[in-house]
Amino acid sequence: MKRNVLIIGAGGVAQVTAHKCAQNNDLLGDLHIASRTKAKCDQIIESVREKASLKVDGVFKAHSLDAMDTAAVADLIHQTGVQIVINVGSPFVNMTVLEACLETGTAYMDTAIHEDPAKICETPPWYGNYEWKRREACAEKKVTAILGIGFDPGVVNAYAKLAIDDYVNEPSSIDIVDINAGDHGRWFSTNFDPEINFREFTGTVYSWQQGAWQTNKMFEIGKEWDLPVVGTQKAYMTGHDEVHSLATNYPNADVRFWMGFGDHYINVFTVLNNLGLLSEQPVKTAEGLEVVPLKLVKAVLPDPSSLAPDYVGKTCIGTLVKGKTEGQDAEVFIYNVADHKDAYNEVGSQGISYTAGVPPVAAAMLIADGTWDVGTMKNVEELDPKPFLNILNRIGLPTFIKDANGERPLTF
Amino acid sequence: MKRNVLIIGAGGVAQVTAHKCAQNNDLLGDLHIASRTKAKCDQIIESVREKASLKVDGVFKAHSLDAMDTAAVADLIHQTGVQIVINVGSPFVNMTVLEACLETGTAYMDTAIHEDPAKICETPPWYGNYEWKRREACAEKKVTAILGIGFDPGVVNAYAKLAIDDYVNEPSSIDIVDINAGDHGRWFSTNFDPEINFREFTGTVYSWQQGAWQTNKMFEIGKEWDLPVVGTQKAYMTGHDEVHSLATNYPNADVRFWMGFGDHYINVFTVLNNLGLLSEQPVKTAEGLEVVPLKLVKAVLPDPSSLAPDYVGKTCIGTLVKGKTEGQDAEVFIYNVADHKDAYNEVGSQGISYTAGVPPVAAAMLIADGTWDVGTMKNVEELDPKPFLNILNRIGLPTFIKDANGERPLTF
Repeated sequence: MKRNVLIIGAGGVAQVTAHKCAQNNDLLGDLHIASRTKAKCDQIIESVREKASLKVDGVFKAHSLDAMDTAAVADLIHQTGVQIVINVGSPFVNMTVLEACLETGTAYMDTAIHEDPAKICETPPWYGNYEWKRREACAEKKVTAILGIGFDPGVVNAYAKLAIDDYVNEPSSIDIVDINAGDHGRWFSTNFDPEINFREFTGTVYSWQQGAWQTNKMFEIGKEWDLPVVGTQKAYMTGHDEVHSLATNYPNADVRFWMGFGDHYINVFTVLNNLGLLSEQPVKTAEGLEVVPLKLVKAVLPDPSSLAPDYVGKTCIGTLVKGKTEGQDAEVFIYNVADHKDAYNEVGSQGISYTAGVPPVAAAMLIADGTWDVGTMKNVEELDPKPFLNILNRIGLPTFIKDANGERPLTF
Repeated sequence: MKRNVLIIGAGGVAQVTAHKCAQNNDLLGDLHIASRTKAKCDQIIESVREKASLKVDGVFKAHSLDAMDTAAVADLIHQTGVQIVINVGSPFVNMTVLEACLETGTAYMDTAIHEDPAKICETPPWYGNYEWKRREACAEKKVTAILGIGFDPGVVNAYAKLAIDDYVNEPSSIDIVDINAGDHGRWFSTNFDPEINFREFTGTVYSWQQGAWQTNKMFEIGKEWDLPVVGTQKAYMTGHDEVHSLATNYPNADVRFWMGFGDHYINVFTVLNNLGLLSEQPVKTAEGLEVVPLKLVKAVLPDPSSLAPDYVGKTCIGTLVKGKTEGQDAEVFIYNVADHKDAYNEVGSQGISYTAGVPPVAAAMLIADGTWDVGTMKNVEELDPKPFLNILNRIGLPTFIKDANGERPLTF
């Protein structure tokens, strides 16, 4: 039994996580939120109070924190008495926060792979470069660390585990498909931090096929998918975190990630990328100023959290597993459909933030009640998916299945 | 009779001007070249020596100069004893250099309208904002100042004057058409300083039609033109310097400027412009760094002078005048065709720099021999075009005409 939660980060995802923690504070206990800019945390708490999200009277405090500073994170953990840290800050802070959790014996979660700001797309499997090097330390200190517990990675890993446990025992392929069929009404915007968004696509596209890492370029391989609710959508093979753990856990299956992109996004990306404007390496202007192009691009683009009020339409994200069960061909697509406007009405954020920010709260609830408090480091497909998906069914991200028997909700 | 020339600037156009001055140093006398970075001037002089461009033995010296500093420019004029200044530096320095010429009684030329770095596209007529305010001072001090004596503005103004003098006495329209049908082989590049290039297109498109200034957006009005040598080409109505003087001198004619753009250029421009990356106004990154987006875009794009070795194809730039002569409908297109590879072989620059850099040398020769040493400020259409076009026929930019009698070279 663990109680009291520290949320690190104050962007769109953190806002969702904050609301969802508040809605379940009877189980989670005291709530704290910390980021470099305390004012952003104050705003989030203000929004939680406006929507009366706290289920029971309780603590929700804002803190200023440099999450790159392990000692500062450990101090805050001691000072607040939290036993669970949900890290939804920048992926540059994962290792410093995890280190603080190891020092203090606190449960840790994040939603994206650790990144070094100066490097794009390291060698696969990505988790092997930073996270898994701390696995033994977690086991030794009995620290629960759940990696990549957003929607994708996260819920889609649980979908894969469920599909293989119950529907396709011998998987030959695992395809994650992520379609955002929403419309934010801007000429161009990314749906989350532009710096992180573009960094996903400027490197090599790694997939696991025929038992080995394969490399492609972004937008090299596209495919039309016919999906529930959102219909026929074109998606492109993309490098993504969950490929790197699923390929390690299911090495006999091909593992690929597909993300939907419209022609307009691809065109803007291609122009910026070909001109060198998505580079993480500084260039010098004629006046001698050193500028990282990607950071300027981030500065001129809309703040993704500003999109929420006008965002309409739905997302469909799921896991398609094909293979055999008892010698027979089998295929199952397990998925969720989220609505941007519903997310805004409930927690003041758009659907992309919603799908990423709710799952770590479900995981925190499972750590709080002991179900997932496993005392070591895990990727999501290494945990029992059913209690997790059951909570998500209840708190806003219901699971559906499509197979030979049609489409239907899944409960356990 | 004036002698000894100071070239200000050390870009691609300055390189052409330097070679052409050298090829005519028997008339022009001592040559000097100055820019902020003396090393660039040294390189240009080295290139002049490599190609043995100096017609007769003579002086060619490099200098370091901050051309925004009028006193420094005046000092250099005194020190070198020049009587003619060819300003082919950034358009931000026009007024400080002109002021130094006024102080020292030196003839002045430039190739583009003066610009304030912090302002895009001021009110029409553009020359009225800075240049023409110094017209009286030039007349009082008997200083010859020839404005906009590149190709466009410059030669095209002379074409307009010639067309109206000799072929279309009552002009109803003057259309300048600028087509670059060359290929530089890069994914994207501007043909001259990206900062100046993009600044031309981010503001209002001013044209003079039906006796008044009309406003349009860039790429709003496009038209296919069937031109000599380069064939059918799409060009778009664009704001450009010469519209502002020709409209003042020929207020009864519609005056428009058309520049050729491929779909690829338009797409890249549209993406950069819509995202705010062509702005001259600083933005602040999340890290607190103030950056002028346009200056970063300049830094990531190819240096236009690097394009020359691979540039192939031709340019066609000319003036189409329609109207009446002795009561009869009349129409004439006066134009030049330049070849990128020929330009590179002769002076080490591509064709766009060549067409801009040669005309001020022809004008310098006419100031040197007294023909154009008018002792006041003039736009090019206010001067006798024939001696000017005759020199250009001889030094690399021959004039052609297309009218009811067909296409043919023009000599006088």
